[in-house]
Amino acid sequence: MSNKEKRVEAITARDENFSQWYTDIVLKAELCSYSPVRGCMILRPYGYAIWERITAAFDQMLKETGHENVAMPLFIPESLLQKEKDHVEGFAPEVAWVTQGGDEVLAERLVIRPTSETLFCAHYAETIESWRDLPKLYNQWCSVVRWEKTTRPFLRTTEFFWQEGHTAHADEADAREETMRILDLYAKLYEEVMAVPVIKGRKSEKEKFAGALETYTVEAMMHDGKALQAATSHYFGDGFAKAFDITYTDKDNVLQHVHQTSWGLSSRSIGGLIMVHGDDDGLRLPPRLAPVQIVIVPVAMHKEGVLDEAAALKDKLSQFRVKIDDSDKMPGWKFAEHEMKGIPLRLEIGPRDIAKGVCLAVRRDTGEKQELPLEGIAERVAELLDEIHEHMLQEARERLESRQYEAANWAEFCDLIANKPGFVHAYWCGDVACEEKVKDETTATSRCIIESEDLSDKTCVVCDDPAKHLAIWGKAY
Amino acid sequence: MSNKEKRVEAITARDENFSQWYTDIVLKAELCSYSPVRGCMILRPYGYAIWERITAAFDQMLKETGHENVAMPLFIPESLLQKEKDHVEGFAPEVAWVTQGGDEVLAERLVIRPTSETLFCAHYAETIESWRDLPKLYNQWCSVVRWEKTTRPFLRTTEFFWQEGHTAHADEADAREETMRILDLYAKLYEEVMAVPVIKGRKSEKEKFAGALETYTVEAMMHDGKALQAATSHYFGDGFAKAFDITYTDKDNVLQHVHQTSWGLSSRSIGGLIMVHGDDDGLRLPPRLAPVQIVIVPVAMHKEGVLDEAAALKDKLSQFRVKIDDSDKMPGWKFAEHEMKGIPLRLEIGPRDIAKGVCLAVRRDTGEKQELPLEGIAERVAELLDEIHEHMLQEARERLESRQYEAANWAEFCDLIANKPGFVHAYWCGDVACEEKVKDETTATSRCIIESEDLSDKTCVVCDDPAKHLAIWGKAY
Repeated sequence: MSNKEKRVEAITARDENFSQWYTDIVLKAELCSYSPVRGCMILRPYGYAIWERITAAFDQMLKETGHENVAMPLFIPESLLQKEKDHVEGFAPEVAWVTQGGDEVLAERLVIRPTSETLFCAHYAETIESWRDLPKLYNQWCSVVRWEKTTRPFLRTTEFFWQEGHTAHADEADAREETMRILDLYAKLYEEVMAVPVIKGRKSEKEKFAGALETYTVEAMMHDGKALQAATSHYFGDGFAKAFDITYTDKDNVLQHVHQTSWGLSSRSIGGLIMVHGDDDGLRLPPRLAPVQIVIVPVAMHKEGVLDEAAALKDKLSQFRVKIDDSDKMPGWKFAEHEMKGIPLRLEIGPRDIAKGVCLAVRRDTGEKQELPLEGIAERVAELLDEIHEHMLQEARERLESRQYEAANWAEFCDLIANKPGFVHAYWCGDVACEEKVKDETTATSRCIIESEDLSDKTCVVCDDPAKHLAIWGKAY
Repeated sequence: MSNKEKRVEAITARDENFSQWYTDIVLKAELCSYSPVRGCMILRPYGYAIWERITAAFDQMLKETGHENVAMPLFIPESLLQKEKDHVEGFAPEVAWVTQGGDEVLAERLVIRPTSETLFCAHYAETIESWRDLPKLYNQWCSVVRWEKTTRPFLRTTEFFWQEGHTAHADEADAREETMRILDLYAKLYEEVMAVPVIKGRKSEKEKFAGALETYTVEAMMHDGKALQAATSHYFGDGFAKAFDITYTDKDNVLQHVHQTSWGLSSRSIGGLIMVHGDDDGLRLPPRLAPVQIVIVPVAMHKEGVLDEAAALKDKLSQFRVKIDDSDKMPGWKFAEHEMKGIPLRLEIGPRDIAKGVCLAVRRDTGEKQELPLEGIAERVAELLDEIHEHMLQEARERLESRQYEAANWAEFCDLIANKPGFVHAYWCGDVACEEKVKDETTATSRCIIESEDLSDKTCVVCDDPAKHLAIWGKAY
């Protein structure tokens, strides 16, 4: 066992115990820690910095597509939550209740928002009057609370961070277009920023959002073959508009209900990032997301000129997020720590490198080492970071693609779910009874329904009735 | 009455009814609106954009001074809140209580954070071990809840937005230095970004933060002469450290308690911005803060080339936050709306301007109009925006300075507070009984204690006992 292995031995091997490996990374990379509040996590500086990068990237996409940020209250009066029947049925069992303010017992209880459709609807009912006010493309960044019985850092916590978009449109076509535009933005964020490939599809009736007509999802595959619902986009039709009386006068002066959408991406995406890219040395962060893209490690720091050259190198790389590790730890310790934190590129520079006018670049994704001339290094590093992104995305994509299976019948289906980590494609009659049988007997769930060819000669993998959908099934977080 | 006056007549004149004028601006500039939740406001897109600018500016200052963002839970268990005696006494009467989660009545009630000292302390107790771990310079951006009986948009709301910094240091000197560093950063933010001059000082024992040894404040003066506590920075000594057992081993391997600070700036700063800079036409935003710095209004839009020239002008100004108003409203309406929203600079461009190679610039702060050559306009606009900032700051500073009064005795003091809007400087024995007498008889409060010359021959303005402090007094929001 090498020295480096010894230093990181506290991390469980990924293939040995995936769940423990995940928890080890979360804690050892100092992403978050447990709090004195049941089910709530503390986002530590490094974890929060990753969330800041995700929010900055997606916020920019939202602004470029005409969305505006707002802030709604943290509380929802009980009567307001109850206005849309399906919505309240879905959320009431898992909310936190405020019953007292100061010394006063509240006449009406307040819910801590589990999601804010009802608040946005009440605001839209007050502020939308004419077709000129549409569309309203609002988003908020906040935390929400759902009273979870079992929790895991990032993946399922009582309080979590997210953005929730809530939009109102003149008609169905415009609202449907928005629903899909956002789904595409989520896929773009995952693939182009987080290097995580996703599959787009529609949720089943059972799995859709409480109050939505349709829910669309991007599903990612974790390293253990399980699915993570990575973000969702909901089309509401005019159901909420009717419950909340959100109307506008159209160009012909006729009163119409708006059509609405909502959509969300949460801090659970960080859990996905870990489980897609992490390895036995810790986190691996894709360069566009990494809070620190490059760490410069001066070798033989005490020798004259080394720290100066390291600083000069940092200056040359000022367009990137770069830091110098000139702490007094041994180089091996530093390397292990930077690898644990997933910093995409390490540049080592010592007296011999300086004499040769080079530094040694070490990629976190492959471990590959190469000498880089200091002359013109910024350009080469920019290329290298893009190469790292592409490689990480490609690697994850190949894993995703190589783990897609097709089940022609129930026996095959059960065998695949039990023995082949990954996604199983199977035809389905659309009946919730079959969906529940899958869950009860295999623990898999329908991840999404995908567009498909003509289904006229296809039959349900569970009951053999004529198929209505081609669905993707899998175990999920 | 001109057309423009008619369009904005719904705004109360500032000198007629300051309070109603304030509310009118908040609503008509669409900064926020009332929500279905008592005492909670909705930050609308324009109000939120201003808050985003404030947070971006201050977040950058914090990062440049080595601070790191984190996120603590929204909840505080009742037992945790109770660990520091003064702190719980100060906050317990005004918090919201969660007593039920899902179907479960909680064994221990949870408070919705009114401030997060207790959570940071619990985290520091777990994570700080050695002098190498210090200082910890943590900050979080979040909302907090204090159960207020009477509320006003931005100034006092049940839920409000803020940053709260919480730091831990090896010794008193380092913690005190941080307390003052942050106070200076707050003053810098107000003066250099918001064009609001402030007075720095220390709060009295009565007015200091619950649990602090000392509270420092930046106080701003509103247009009506009243004070606004604009931000505060607290020095805790080792009081919280002892209550929460936050220790570290120093370089000599001796166990020590940390020394701590906390400090906060909230969305109430937006209320200050309105009340310092607003006028009878609405908001006036300082250029470095304005979400839109420049609005381009094409005149005679239907004429060939006008919209193209407006777009070309926008391209030339791409380094600024600029938008074109090509809506179909009449120019006078547009002007009134841009003035209400406080956009610092309006550029009008029509066929005659284009022929002359100029546009017409109209300053929001002074109303002054000037022709600007399109050639080299970006440079001139950059200068002009700086001039607007300096003018707004200077104007507010002159008002602040011209309204400082000195009271030699109690009769003068009462007369000044009653009849001269502004701040009264008066010597004080430091006794809380005198402070309470001031409040009871004049409604003024001690705003802050300022550094002063030798006080040996000075006497308290209230009781004539020997003076301990020179304090600033005034009515406040």
